[in-house]
Amino acid sequence: MRAVDVIQRKRDGLELSREEISFFVEGYTRGRIPDYQASALAMAIFFKGMTAGETVGLAEAMMGTGEVLDLSDLPGPKADKHSTGGVGDKTSLILAPLAAACGVYVPMISGRGLGHTGGTLDKLESIPGFRVNLSLTEFRAVLRKARLGLIGQTPEIAPADRKLYALRDVTATVESLPLIAASIMSKKMAEGIDALILDVKTGDGAFMKTLPESKGLAETMVAIGRGLGKKVAALITDMEQPLGHAVGNALEVAECVETLKGRGPKDLESLSLELAGWMLTLGGLVPTMEAARARVRDALGSGAGLRKFQEIVELQGGDPRVCDDGSRLPRAREQVDLKAEADGRVVRIGCRAVGHAAMLLGAGRETVDSAIDPAVGLVLHKKVGDLVIKDEPLLTLHVNDRGRLDEAQHRLREAIRVAPEAPPRAPLIHAVLD
Amino acid sequence: MRAVDVIQRKRDGLELSREEISFFVEGYTRGRIPDYQASALAMAIFFKGMTAGETVGLAEAMMGTGEVLDLSDLPGPKADKHSTGGVGDKTSLILAPLAAACGVYVPMISGRGLGHTGGTLDKLESIPGFRVNLSLTEFRAVLRKARLGLIGQTPEIAPADRKLYALRDVTATVESLPLIAASIMSKKMAEGIDALILDVKTGDGAFMKTLPESKGLAETMVAIGRGLGKKVAALITDMEQPLGHAVGNALEVAECVETLKGRGPKDLESLSLELAGWMLTLGGLVPTMEAARARVRDALGSGAGLRKFQEIVELQGGDPRVCDDGSRLPRAREQVDLKAEADGRVVRIGCRAVGHAAMLLGAGRETVDSAIDPAVGLVLHKKVGDLVIKDEPLLTLHVNDRGRLDEAQHRLREAIRVAPEAPPRAPLIHAVLD
Repeated sequence: MRAVDVIQRKRDGLELSREEISFFVEGYTRGRIPDYQASALAMAIFFKGMTAGETVGLAEAMMGTGEVLDLSDLPGPKADKHSTGGVGDKTSLILAPLAAACGVYVPMISGRGLGHTGGTLDKLESIPGFRVNLSLTEFRAVLRKARLGLIGQTPEIAPADRKLYALRDVTATVESLPLIAASIMSKKMAEGIDALILDVKTGDGAFMKTLPESKGLAETMVAIGRGLGKKVAALITDMEQPLGHAVGNALEVAECVETLKGRGPKDLESLSLELAGWMLTLGGLVPTMEAARARVRDALGSGAGLRKFQEIVELQGGDPRVCDDGSRLPRAREQVDLKAEADGRVVRIGCRAVGHAAMLLGAGRETVDSAIDPAVGLVLHKKVGDLVIKDEPLLTLHVNDRGRLDEAQHRLREAIRVAPEAPPRAPLIHAVLD
Repeated sequence: MRAVDVIQRKRDGLELSREEISFFVEGYTRGRIPDYQASALAMAIFFKGMTAGETVGLAEAMMGTGEVLDLSDLPGPKADKHSTGGVGDKTSLILAPLAAACGVYVPMISGRGLGHTGGTLDKLESIPGFRVNLSLTEFRAVLRKARLGLIGQTPEIAPADRKLYALRDVTATVESLPLIAASIMSKKMAEGIDALILDVKTGDGAFMKTLPESKGLAETMVAIGRGLGKKVAALITDMEQPLGHAVGNALEVAECVETLKGRGPKDLESLSLELAGWMLTLGGLVPTMEAARARVRDALGSGAGLRKFQEIVELQGGDPRVCDDGSRLPRAREQVDLKAEADGRVVRIGCRAVGHAAMLLGAGRETVDSAIDPAVGLVLHKKVGDLVIKDEPLLTLHVNDRGRLDEAQHRLREAIRVAPEAPPRAPLIHAVLD
């Protein structure tokens, strides 16, 4: 088999066999197939797409280049959630302890934020002492003890994806649905889970801007997961405005703690509970979503979720007192309000722009190498549909470096629109693929 | 400017600017832009094509990465011919001396054969002692003296093309019309010529199998040449059967000598004279093609073409006595006839298969690294439309190594069809783009 023939077959619109895909992915990961052939194949896939069978084959081959965790010794269902990323999207820190408190093992391997979107690892690292870079051995020990572990991508998991993603980033081949889906699923399927709930974001602040695009990605990922024998479902959820109120790492952790105390924003609480419920249901712990919702709500109401969060923070080296004393989280030096310029109702909070403004303050990364400031960000006081009075604060910026404050304020002013009439409220969950 | 943005713009179907193209080609040639970005761009070009302006820009940028000969000190028109390659396509060895004998400077830089097609350099090297690897300084000296020089690609000419072609070959991006056209023209336009006649082959033995494809390539190349301020025209000529009778390097040289003596096959003589005529016309040496044809025919009839051929063979280190004594050319040990199995007329000589059979005997290269045998090949005794009688030889194979003789014979039997009725004779020149 020759790599050039595989490229040519894809270029000409033919379906690649499992053997061809695995030959290419293995060969590329081990350095037998050079970057220039992999980028040509990626571009051919960008134009010609992949069948469902090819996409499953690709994810499986990528997963197979690294370690696939075997958690069969753990006595209970193993489930995880994956989100395609958004602004203020912090459900992992809420649903993971809730699901674990209910009896699900949650071996969560997460990523970092880039551009206007945040990342779970960055949020966790704003907790003083929290270590996300556990070895796989430490990860297993933590999981066994707490039914929960929260770590970053390790070199052992799907090395093909790491190599291929870096290549796609510099060859304009990122925006390919099968490549995106296979990249996500190759890592998630290596976690040794039985079940996965996908949170595919849609709208202005999401990677996929439209419902059809988001559904397409969700369907492809669900097909991959099922092709690999897992229980998988997907929710298509709204990202036309940020989720919850806080955007910025320590600010979001504080909001998660509030939510685990039952005092969180409605949208954040509601989505987190729903996703946790799916983890119980797909994991087979309960027979119906109704039973799952009741169980998760109990874990929230009883404080079991919060205790599980404290337990994992402590197990992974962090300071669990952040749950009782918010001042133990990093705090920005300065708070600056952005005030309403007229009476009315909030009709739009440009989600991408809010994420971008937080990035400008230092909460996010402009490039993968950028350093971030865990303390900074912003907190919305109003969401779409809310009534505002002139001079009332719409949001508060948490600032350490005023360097790009003007630019951030300008972007936010442009992004938030107040008008006499509010639009009909958009649903939080647009669709369910189960 | 970033390479990834250039790739993305092409991927998204936008037109690249001259600056973007030159940034990419320069950067790639100098090693600032890596292979994996160049192959991604090549694949995007494969799918999205290039506008006429982009293609001119690409050829110009590729030409500009190396030396562009300045022959303005030579007192006369400089013209060349380029063929897209075929089987038995040996016109260069006839038209170059004829045009030079008529007063045109012919700085011809040629290539080698690959697969079923032959190459001028391989043919020349079958002449004992002939050196095709002159330095550019030697080339200039020979040109000044004989108005003719016949050399191979040098590292100084369009290095971008050499590098890019090697990359395209292993990334399934060869078959892209703008990339093919720019590759050819970047090298030809570096020869310091004023005029170029293109011989774009069409049919079974050609790179382009159909008339529309061949016309498309011809139009693109003509547009590039004119975009760079040269006089360019193109003939679309037939490659449904081999040109002339001989296929194989020394055998073809012998046929060229015969043709320069006025005893060559009709099709080969006719096309060679016509192409030489275009060189005179485009070069501005004569006002009309009618005058050009008369002038070239005189050069043939008077023996001036043959003398010019002898002169250049001698100047480039070869043995000019090959013109008078065919036994000075390499000869195969064995001749094997392929005989007609029935009476009738030849209705088809599968051109690609004939080229492939010659390659199997050692006349051509299976891969770029293959060694070739200058002596071997085959000579057709019949062409399409000719009457044959059972057991009459259709062709003679010239063989040194019987290893793949059976396979060659089998392919030839499959390729040549004899039937009671001949089809209407196909024209030698299908179209003229002037």
